[in-house]
Amino acid sequence: MTGRVGAMARIDISISEVGPRDGLQNTKIFMATDAKKAWIRALAAAGLPEIEVCSFVNPKMIAQFSDAAEVAADALTIPNLSVVALVPNLKGAQRAAEIGVPRLSLPISASEAHSRANVRKTVDEQLAELGAIVALRNTLPPERRFKINAGVSTAFGCTLQGDVPEADVLRIAAAAVTLDADSVSIADTVGYANPGQVRRLLAAVKREIGPKLDAAHFHNTRGLGLANCVAAIEAGVSALDSSLAGLGGCPYAPGASGNVITEDLVFMLESMGLRTGVDFDKLMQAREILVASLPGAEFYGHLAKSGLPKGFAGAVAA
Amino acid sequence: MTGRVGAMARIDISISEVGPRDGLQNTKIFMATDAKKAWIRALAAAGLPEIEVCSFVNPKMIAQFSDAAEVAADALTIPNLSVVALVPNLKGAQRAAEIGVPRLSLPISASEAHSRANVRKTVDEQLAELGAIVALRNTLPPERRFKINAGVSTAFGCTLQGDVPEADVLRIAAAAVTLDADSVSIADTVGYANPGQVRRLLAAVKREIGPKLDAAHFHNTRGLGLANCVAAIEAGVSALDSSLAGLGGCPYAPGASGNVITEDLVFMLESMGLRTGVDFDKLMQAREILVASLPGAEFYGHLAKSGLPKGFAGAVAA
Repeated sequence: MTGRVGAMARIDISISEVGPRDGLQNTKIFMATDAKKAWIRALAAAGLPEIEVCSFVNPKMIAQFSDAAEVAADALTIPNLSVVALVPNLKGAQRAAEIGVPRLSLPISASEAHSRANVRKTVDEQLAELGAIVALRNTLPPERRFKINAGVSTAFGCTLQGDVPEADVLRIAAAAVTLDADSVSIADTVGYANPGQVRRLLAAVKREIGPKLDAAHFHNTRGLGLANCVAAIEAGVSALDSSLAGLGGCPYAPGASGNVITEDLVFMLESMGLRTGVDFDKLMQAREILVASLPGAEFYGHLAKSGLPKGFAGAVAA
Repeated sequence: MTGRVGAMARIDISISEVGPRDGLQNTKIFMATDAKKAWIRALAAAGLPEIEVCSFVNPKMIAQFSDAAEVAADALTIPNLSVVALVPNLKGAQRAAEIGVPRLSLPISASEAHSRANVRKTVDEQLAELGAIVALRNTLPPERRFKINAGVSTAFGCTLQGDVPEADVLRIAAAAVTLDADSVSIADTVGYANPGQVRRLLAAVKREIGPKLDAAHFHNTRGLGLANCVAAIEAGVSALDSSLAGLGGCPYAPGASGNVITEDLVFMLESMGLRTGVDFDKLMQAREILVASLPGAEFYGHLAKSGLPKGFAGAVAA
């Protein structure tokens, strides 16, 4: 998602770091609250314009997010950072709104089977939840009103349902806009997308909802994450989600790697001459905090092994 | 490289498997000759139209290829397979020609520093070597004449020299065509390329030498291998090199992964509706032979962990 506040340098592609939410969501080890805070601060210090800092899910469902309010409250004190939280439902939105999170993201599965498994609602029931969250937002005083993103998940296929028709994705995206969502992001939740499909689907969504199309979110389950990011950019998307060290892994694909790897994405974009605003060395420092805080977890990333190419100076020099 | 003989099914993108050459070149363990033969047969049985089976380098330089003649001779008996061998110089070409290898590839570095390190010649001396190999070919009776590919290496940057000017790549490609090379391939030997650069450089080479531009060859050192393959296709290339299990690794980047991973490339292309002629299950059987034959080596690949998506039927269904 875009929505960064007060970014100082020009950014061509806005990376939203989702590791503290999507990454930790799939990690068995509980990351200490202080470590989460330090990690998020390091990510922000590296220049990432936006961070999805937690999920306001029921802690009985995912214990990792039992400290969501404390983590989010701390992140809100970081200057020039767009703080996002995932909310699975109205109750989560209420909790996030209470502490003033300015941007909420509600997942809406394009697959009925995934919707029932993920949020125990049909797709239309989850769209109704979006309507309820918008209504909640509209009751708040103007200075406390949050932005709401509809994250269309399993948009490129589903491990439970298999194929997901493009028409279903377009219907949900259009419905979300009609319900007054501020933005719509499109997610390959299970790592099924390929670059051709990404170009086609995102171009179709763009035709359907125009500038309300915000970020694309890919998993690297089958190694196509970066190729899909390039395809998304070609389709006119300028905001991408990714996760430091590719933290995450998909619970439906054991052993498979997780989200698009932030370090690798930053390197690719900067080497293509697309400015991300991210300082690579500081990003690797944030990685060190992460690795030290989650002993035993699986981390990914090519740049962490290979380093930058000789004489690499980023987008400014590209 | 393309150049497959007698392929039965229509192929949109021709994959040249370079594992037995580029992969093994960077592996410390000697792979038994019989295992090499069995692996190559399994790769061919999976439908790969072309395999670079060995290097006719001086065995004192790379002991892995001390059995090059035996391995190549065996591969030449496989029906419907385009057999390629790397030759670093005229002497290698003579050895390959003696046993009737129909397609030779000569590396020509675009970086002077890499050229001296790799073949102990300047770029122009290596171009002269190409001329000598063409002259050798022309002395042979027509039925024994091989095709000769000029592989422009370090075309996207060099670990020794740093930047490699595009003009140098274009000059070598044009010179190779003038010297009567049958084709030219463009290689990112050290994993520096990015998709924007790939599109620009390959389009420029295509303008310079037209259909003589054959394959693109990428390493996955920084995780951009598949994204670069998509960019190459967009630039009009229809032949790609890759290596089963990403075997290889770059000697200049310890710990970094090697060539583009064949299994992942096949999956990506087929999922994009581009036919490769490769049977995925049989390809994974070839991988098992490789893994069993090189204990202790490092293998890569997302598909080997994740498996195909639910209901995946390849390009025919895409």
